Amino acid sequence: MAQSLQQSQQRHLDELIQWLKIPSVSSDTSKIGDVKAAGDWIANKLADSGLKVETIQTQGHPMIYAESPAIDGAPVVLVYGHYDVQPPEPLNLWTTPAFEPTVRNGNLYARGATDDKGQVLTHVHSICDWMATGKPLPLQIKLLIEGEEEVGSENLERMMPELADKLACDCVVISDSSQYGPGQPAITYGLRGIATYELLVQGPKQDLHSGSFGGAVMNPAIALCHLMSSMVDREGRIAIDGFYDSVRDLSPAEREAWDQLPKTDDFAKSVGASELFGEKGYSADERRWARPTFDINGLTSGHQGEGVKTVLPAQASAKFSFRLVPDQDPTQLTDAINSHLTKHLPTGVTFKLTPDHGAPGMLADTNSRFMDAARAAITAAFETPPVLIREGGSIPIVTRFQETLRCDCLLLGWGLSDDNAHSPDEKFCIEDFYRGIQASTMLWESIGKLSS
Amino acid sequence: MAQSLQQSQQRHLDELIQWLKIPSVSSDTSKIGDVKAAGDWIANKLADSGLKVETIQTQGHPMIYAESPAIDGAPVVLVYGHYDVQPPEPLNLWTTPAFEPTVRNGNLYARGATDDKGQVLTHVHSICDWMATGKPLPLQIKLLIEGEEEVGSENLERMMPELADKLACDCVVISDSSQYGPGQPAITYGLRGIATYELLVQGPKQDLHSGSFGGAVMNPAIALCHLMSSMVDREGRIAIDGFYDSVRDLSPAEREAWDQLPKTDDFAKSVGASELFGEKGYSADERRWARPTFDINGLTSGHQGEGVKTVLPAQASAKFSFRLVPDQDPTQLTDAINSHLTKHLPTGVTFKLTPDHGAPGMLADTNSRFMDAARAAITAAFETPPVLIREGGSIPIVTRFQETLRCDCLLLGWGLSDDNAHSPDEKFCIEDFYRGIQASTMLWESIGKLSS
Repeated sequence: MAQSLQQSQQRHLDELIQWLKIPSVSSDTSKIGDVKAAGDWIANKLADSGLKVETIQTQGHPMIYAESPAIDGAPVVLVYGHYDVQPPEPLNLWTTPAFEPTVRNGNLYARGATDDKGQVLTHVHSICDWMATGKPLPLQIKLLIEGEEEVGSENLERMMPELADKLACDCVVISDSSQYGPGQPAITYGLRGIATYELLVQGPKQDLHSGSFGGAVMNPAIALCHLMSSMVDREGRIAIDGFYDSVRDLSPAEREAWDQLPKTDDFAKSVGASELFGEKGYSADERRWARPTFDINGLTSGHQGEGVKTVLPAQASAKFSFRLVPDQDPTQLTDAINSHLTKHLPTGVTFKLTPDHGAPGMLADTNSRFMDAARAAITAAFETPPVLIREGGSIPIVTRFQETLRCDCLLLGWGLSDDNAHSPDEKFCIEDFYRGIQASTMLWESIGKLSS
Repeated sequence: MAQSLQQSQQRHLDELIQWLKIPSVSSDTSKIGDVKAAGDWIANKLADSGLKVETIQTQGHPMIYAESPAIDGAPVVLVYGHYDVQPPEPLNLWTTPAFEPTVRNGNLYARGATDDKGQVLTHVHSICDWMATGKPLPLQIKLLIEGEEEVGSENLERMMPELADKLACDCVVISDSSQYGPGQPAITYGLRGIATYELLVQGPKQDLHSGSFGGAVMNPAIALCHLMSSMVDREGRIAIDGFYDSVRDLSPAEREAWDQLPKTDDFAKSVGASELFGEKGYSADERRWARPTFDINGLTSGHQGEGVKTVLPAQASAKFSFRLVPDQDPTQLTDAINSHLTKHLPTGVTFKLTPDHGAPGMLADTNSRFMDAARAAITAAFETPPVLIREGGSIPIVTRFQETLRCDCLLLGWGLSDDNAHSPDEKFCIEDFYRGIQASTMLWESIGKLSS
C-alpha cells in the first residue's frame, strides 16, 4: 500500500535513527561487534528490498555489496558509502549522547548522522523505495557500503583489483560531503588527499624528577614541540624540504569562479575562532579546498591529570596529518618527514615515526554527462541550482575508484559545513535528508535516460 | 625491654611499610581521606612516644606538629618533612603496585619511600627511640610534618606568620634530598626555586574536521607547540626577555669544588637518555643545581586514544615549570611569561595562563656550627665524610623558614638520585634508611652539646 509523503519521510527518519544507535566506531577494537551489527543492518535493509546482497569479508570490518539487475543499454552506477563512524570522544561535549539520536531544531544529532550513515541512506532509501513500486530501475545500481572509511579504507584499497569486475561502472556516486551553505547545494569536483602519522619522542627510560634532572636531561615534550614547530610556520606554510614541489596550482578560472560564490556567514565566527588564519595570498576557501595543510590531531605527554606533577616525562607523542592536493604523493611524503625529523631532532632524544594511512587528492571532470544529470536532479529537489566546489576533506578511496574502474565520479553532498562531522554534536538537517532522497530518485531517472 | 639492633631495624622498617600503604596523594581530591589517614598515622606514632602532638588544621590537608620539652641552654631544632606523596601515575610502569611496599635487592619500593615518608621517618624513629629510653633529649626538638609539600605548601606558607612563635628554632633539619651517590653522603646547601604553570590555548569553539577546516582555522595544538618552542631553545636556554637578569652566577670556588667531586656513573646512561643535554658552558651538575631551567611536565590535546582521528582540536594545554636559582623572583616571572605569550601568540587562538605555585631558591651557610655537627654525625653513621652539594629540586618552604624563623638550615639527604622520587618504582635503600636513623640520633647528641 502506497504511503503518503509524510508517512514515508517518517519511516525514512525512523530507520536512520535505528542505524545511528549502533556505535560502529571502526578505529576502536572494542567495538568490532557493533561495527558488524551496523553492516548487517544495512545489508538486511538492502536484501529486504529485493536487491542481491553480499557481505564481503576483509582482514578488518566487512563490506556490504548489493546490486540491482543489469539494464541493457543503460549506464551502471556504483553508490559508495560507509557505515563506520568516527570515535565520539570527548563525550562530555555532546549535548545528548552520541549514540542516542535526538531531534532538535530540525536537525538529527548523533555520531554518523551526516558522516556517513545519514547521507548514504538517502540513496539506499531512494533505491529501496523504487524497488518497492515494482517498476524496474532505469539503470543498474550497485552499492558498496564499507566499514573502514574512517580508518583509511586500506582493505578496500588492497582488494580493489580483485573487486574491479564486480564494481565495474560508468560512474561512482558518493554522498559524504557538504553543500556550499544552507539552501545552497553543491557538487564537489575535488577532494584533498591525506597522510596521517604518529610521532613518538623518547627521552630518558622513565619519567624523572624535573628538579633533580631538569636542564641536564632533554625533555621529550620540549623536543616534540620543537619538532612540530619546525614542520610548519605560524601562517600554516609547511617547512619540509620539497613539500610544495609537486603541488598543482589553482587555475585562474577556478579562483575566479570561487570568488563569485555566494558569500556565506563570517567564517571565523561560524567556527568560534577568534580570527581567520592561513597561508598568505589565498582565500579561506582556497586554503581549505586547494592548498596542502598540516594539522596536529593529538598531543600526549607526562602528567595530564589534576594538579601539578613536576615530572620530566620519558616520552611525548603527537598524532598529526597532512591534507594533500592533486599531484602530491603521500608515499613520498613519509621519507621527507623522516629526513626532516632527523635533521631537526634535538640532542638527547630519539624518535619513531609511524605512518598510518595516506591517499592522494582527486579532481573530477566538471563537464561530464553525469555531472549534467546531477545538476538537473539537485536543482529540482533543492529548488536551487548547485554550485561547483572542491572540499578539503579526503575520501581516500575515490582516487582509487577513478584509477581502477576508469569511471566518472559524482560527489553529491547533502550535509552542511557546520555538521560537526568529526566533532561532538554531529548533526544532519532532516529537511536536507529528505531532499537528498528526492534528488537521488531524480538522479536515477536522469541517468537512466543516458546510454551506457 | 631493650631490643637488639636487628629487632629495632625490623620494627623501623615495618612501621615505614605501614605508613607507605596509605596513598596520601595530596593533589588528588579523591584521596582526601587517605591523606588525613597518613597524617593521623604519624601523629599517633609521635604521641605514643610521649611527645606533645597537635594537628593543625589548614584550608587544605592538616599539618602534624609535635614537640619535646624545652631544654634550658640547649638549641631548638625544627624537623620538617611531609607525609603527602606525588601521584603514582603511570601505574602500568610500576614493577609492583605503588602502594604495596615491596623489598627487592635491598631497596624498599613504594610511592613515598624516599619522598618523603622514608626520610622523615628516620628522624621520627631516632626521636621516639630516644624518648623510649626514658633519658631526656639533650635539645628541644619540634617536628612539623605537613600534607601539602607536593602541591606547593601554600597553606603552610600563608600560615607561617601565625605559626612563627610555635616553630621558633635555631636550625631547621630536613631530609628530603639525596646523597651525592651510593656510599657518598652529602649535605645540600642550596636548592632551586620553582614556578609552575598551566597554559590553555583555545582555538575554535569545538573540535573540527581537519579536512574541512584545516589550513583556514588555526590549530591550537600547533599554536601551543610554537609557544612552547618560543620559550626555550634547543640547548635549554630560556628565551623569555629578562629571564637571566637576576640569576646569581656560580662562584669560581663553587665550580672548582664541584669539579673535585668524586665522579659518578655516566650520567646520561644512568637515566637511560641517549646523550647529555643542556646549556652550553656548564657541567651536568652545574646545570641541575645552579642554573635555571624550563620543563614541560605534561601536554594534552585532541585525540589521545587508539588509532587515527583527523580532528582539528578546539584546545591544547601544557603544564610547565621553571626551576629557579637564588635571587630569581617567581612572582615577577608570571608577568614576564604573560608578556612573552602575548607577544608570540599565533593568529586565531587565545590563551589562558594559570600560575600554580612558586618559591624562590635557597642557599645555606656552609660554615655554621650546625653544619659542623651534621658533618660529624653523618661521617660517623655513614663511615664517610659528606660532600657539600646543591640540589636541583625545590622545597618551597625552606626559604620561607629561613626568612620567617631566621634560623640555620640543614638539608641532610639520605636518598639517591636514582630513587625515582616522582616516577614509577620509587625506592629507598633500606641500609641508608637505617644509617639515616643512626645519623639522626648522633645529630641530636652533637647539637645537644652546642649552646642555644
